[in-house]
Amino acid sequence: MARRYDTVTFLSDLGTQDELVGVVHAVFADLAPQVRVVDLAHGIEPYDVRAGSLALARAVPYLPEGIILAAVDPAVPDPRAAIAVEVAGGAGVFVGPDNGLIAPGVALAGGAERAVALTATDHHLNPETSRCRVRDVLAPVAAALCNGVDLADLGPEIDPAALLPGVVPLPRWEGEGVATEVLWVDRFGNCQLNLGPEDLQARWGHGPGSTWSLRSTDPAGEPRQRSARWVVHPAELGGPGIGLMADAHGMIAICLDRASAARELGLGAGDGVVVEPSSSGSPQGPVTSPVTLRPTPVNPQG
Amino acid sequence: MARRYDTVTFLSDLGTQDELVGVVHAVFADLAPQVRVVDLAHGIEPYDVRAGSLALARAVPYLPEGIILAAVDPAVPDPRAAIAVEVAGGAGVFVGPDNGLIAPGVALAGGAERAVALTATDHHLNPETSRCRVRDVLAPVAAALCNGVDLADLGPEIDPAALLPGVVPLPRWEGEGVATEVLWVDRFGNCQLNLGPEDLQARWGHGPGSTWSLRSTDPAGEPRQRSARWVVHPAELGGPGIGLMADAHGMIAICLDRASAARELGLGAGDGVVVEPSSSGSPQGPVTSPVTLRPTPVNPQG
Amino acid sequence: MARRYDTVTFLSDLGTQDELVGVVHAVFADLAPQVRVVDLAHGIEPYDVRAGSLALARAVPYLPEGIILAAVDPAVPDPRAAIAVEVAGGAGVFVGPDNGLIAPGVALAGGAERAVALTATDHHLNPETSRCRVRDVLAPVAAALCNGVDLADLGPEIDPAALLPGVVPLPRWEGEGVATEVLWVDRFGNCQLNLGPEDLQARWGHGPGSTWSLRSTDPAGEPRQRSARWVVHPAELGGPGIGLMADAHGMIAICLDRASAARELGLGAGDGVVVEPSSSGSPQGPVTSPVTLRPTPVNPQG
Repeated sequence: MARRYDTVTFLSDLGTQDELVGVVHAVFADLAPQVRVVDLAHGIEPYDVRAGSLALARAVPYLPEGIILAAVDPAVPDPRAAIAVEVAGGAGVFVGPDNGLIAPGVALAGGAERAVALTATDHHLNPETSRCRVRDVLAPVAAALCNGVDLADLGPEIDPAALLPGVVPLPRWEGEGVATEVLWVDRFGNCQLNLGPEDLQARWGHGPGSTWSLRSTDPAGEPRQRSARWVVHPAELGGPGIGLMADAHGMIAICLDRASAARELGLGAGDGVVVEPSSSGSPQGPVTSPVTLRPTPVNPQG
Repeated sequence: MARRYDTVTFLSDLGTQDELVGVVHAVFADLAPQVRVVDLAHGIEPYDVRAGSLALARAVPYLPEGIILAAVDPAVPDPRAAIAVEVAGGAGVFVGPDNGLIAPGVALAGGAERAVALTATDHHLNPETSRCRVRDVLAPVAAALCNGVDLADLGPEIDPAALLPGVVPLPRWEGEGVATEVLWVDRFGNCQLNLGPEDLQARWGHGPGSTWSLRSTDPAGEPRQRSARWVVHPAELGGPGIGLMADAHGMIAICLDRASAARELGLGAGDGVVVEPSSSGSPQGPVTSPVTLRPTPVNPQG
Repeated sequence: MARRYDTVTFLSDLGTQDELVGVVHAVFADLAPQVRVVDLAHGIEPYDVRAGSLALARAVPYLPEGIILAAVDPAVPDPRAAIAVEVAGGAGVFVGPDNGLIAPGVALAGGAERAVALTATDHHLNPETSRCRVRDVLAPVAAALCNGVDLADLGPEIDPAALLPGVVPLPRWEGEGVATEVLWVDRFGNCQLNLGPEDLQARWGHGPGSTWSLRSTDPAGEPRQRSARWVVHPAELGGPGIGLMADAHGMIAICLDRASAARELGLGAGDGVVVEPSSSGSPQGPVTSPVTLRPTPVNPQG
């Protein structure tokens, strides 16, 4: 008998408008009633594998031992695309599609140690039709793992090295600055960049209190340049200025004081931002747009 | 002592913006702390009894034994309108309003065996005012049932045959085709019709791979005709074409490959779609609108 | 060893689009797996301390014994701003920021008996950075309380009388009527006022069946006057009329029959409404706007 698990952490792009997330909970209540199912997030945009993989990666350091059930765009026709990946000496098992969704989380958890394709249908629901992969394959397989079924009973072993990797963009050092990308806009409008505070400090030696220039393109296609101050907490801005801060995940985020930086700067996930040390080294005005030659659009969403 | 239950499945139109769903959970934590409450869905549109009844019916095959607490538009003034209905030899009890919401679910669970009107106030909260039916009547009654209170102690028995039935529209065979209705648009924009794959196969003998014509009316009132291919999985479309598929509930749904059929065709729940075998029998172009005589509106939402 | 708790009720402005609420659940599953976490609401608008405090106050009468974890705008830089407040002889402990959020709930639970500032970092996560107060301070401290840690071990005692009070506006009696404010618009569009039915009855002696005049300003800035009937249930309106009712929390709310009063009257939280007894004493037409001198705007959202 293999190890048993008592917690399932569940992330998906299913939303909670309809009943499908609830049906997955019902499947667990039926097949593994002793298990606690923790809803990590179900508001990932449909098919947005990257957003799902980043949310999972941000959460991994805080997850208890157990199963991580992840379903974003899991319905690819290839049945081998549903996999289970064991990590950390069996302390955790990721169950999900082989589309890059779980790869960053697996890496953060120490890397894949054993992986199987979920093709054995003994523990599936509706194996003859199996039209809803999360309800019919991923959830009942996760329940089976909780109940002590071994990974080897769920399908043939596959090479962990052959799993589709996640794609997290790297910042590029360009000229005077670094070309970054918005990884994530949180509910408060903070824009997390693919850049760590240690990157900025290692290269330029500046820390909190220093001033930076942010170059981006607003939704109307206009180039924008803004000045930002590195703060420990947005409240230090004490007004309409723009801040950079080390966020709760150890990344650099663009922030405002109790307002949405995403709205102010017209930024969304995937948008590019070039970060440069402020040329003068001394703080400029809090919001400047010196390179705009044409008039500002009437409603630039910012 | 009657049977006890340890799971309550909860569906409502209450949303989760406010605290009322949480208060219902708190009522269970207080009155029946041993019970697991599974949230099925709370995003049903306010007062949309039909949408709630369909979500419940889709979920019933997956629900564990226990109480099904359903509250969509439960606040009708008649106190007899709150009922409890026992099904499956006591394996399940539906608790909700007598407005058609639970009728399809009850039927799928084998039909009502015993029903009572929840007029005995012993197990109610705030019985003197009782202004919030889900918090003050339905939830505490469900908790009482979990704790072993018998149905008969909750109010007078009523005739199950007198309960308000649910209304699920039937497809109508018309001329060359079948007039259907969109029952449900899921989060991914798939449009479930009130039509089963066996209906199409029995009448025309066509199965996956066959081509069909879909006639509907777009939001601007223009008639639209489109060609669709019956696929097993939307990925087979491999591009912008429209598909028909047997969905995860055994119904025919209109689908696109990783995009919203509802948006493309301008369809919503309740809209009519006529499905006909493609006249030529051979696939046409993926999207055609041959009957449009006036120019396409600028923003036809599709 | 201090008292232990087995239920945590959790309210925040974090939303459920992202994973943070799920991470808090994961922290509990890790640190205090025996605990049930009841999600009260996470859809409070970002930084809307007043809305959060009102939702909490509406829920308090229904909460089981245990911890109340509340996080709306908790990230003020002052570390003393995170507090724990014991109420009801230790039956409950509120954990949250000292920004007025928990004050009305504490008052409804009988008042603060003991309070501490959560500055002792023994039970914090990431104490060196602690950038996410709910994840790193409030949740692990709540888990510690559940596990039997005493309040005194979490930080220095503070004077409960010095805590920031909540601000709930009082109605003002003016001329012929009472100037009220919309406290809350629920999902169904009912507009709860800061006015109890006993206030109206004590002053004017009118009860259900009486007719009232409502004066407000629509979103375009136009004054509006409408007639409303005091009903026990909106269904009594039986049509397009406007009602006043004693709502499920014992307050007066403006309502329609199965439609949104907020949309019809163009009202939102914080808007003013003057309620006056109808001058004639007899019902007027259901919707009148006698004081509008300029034409009604095209889209007055009402």
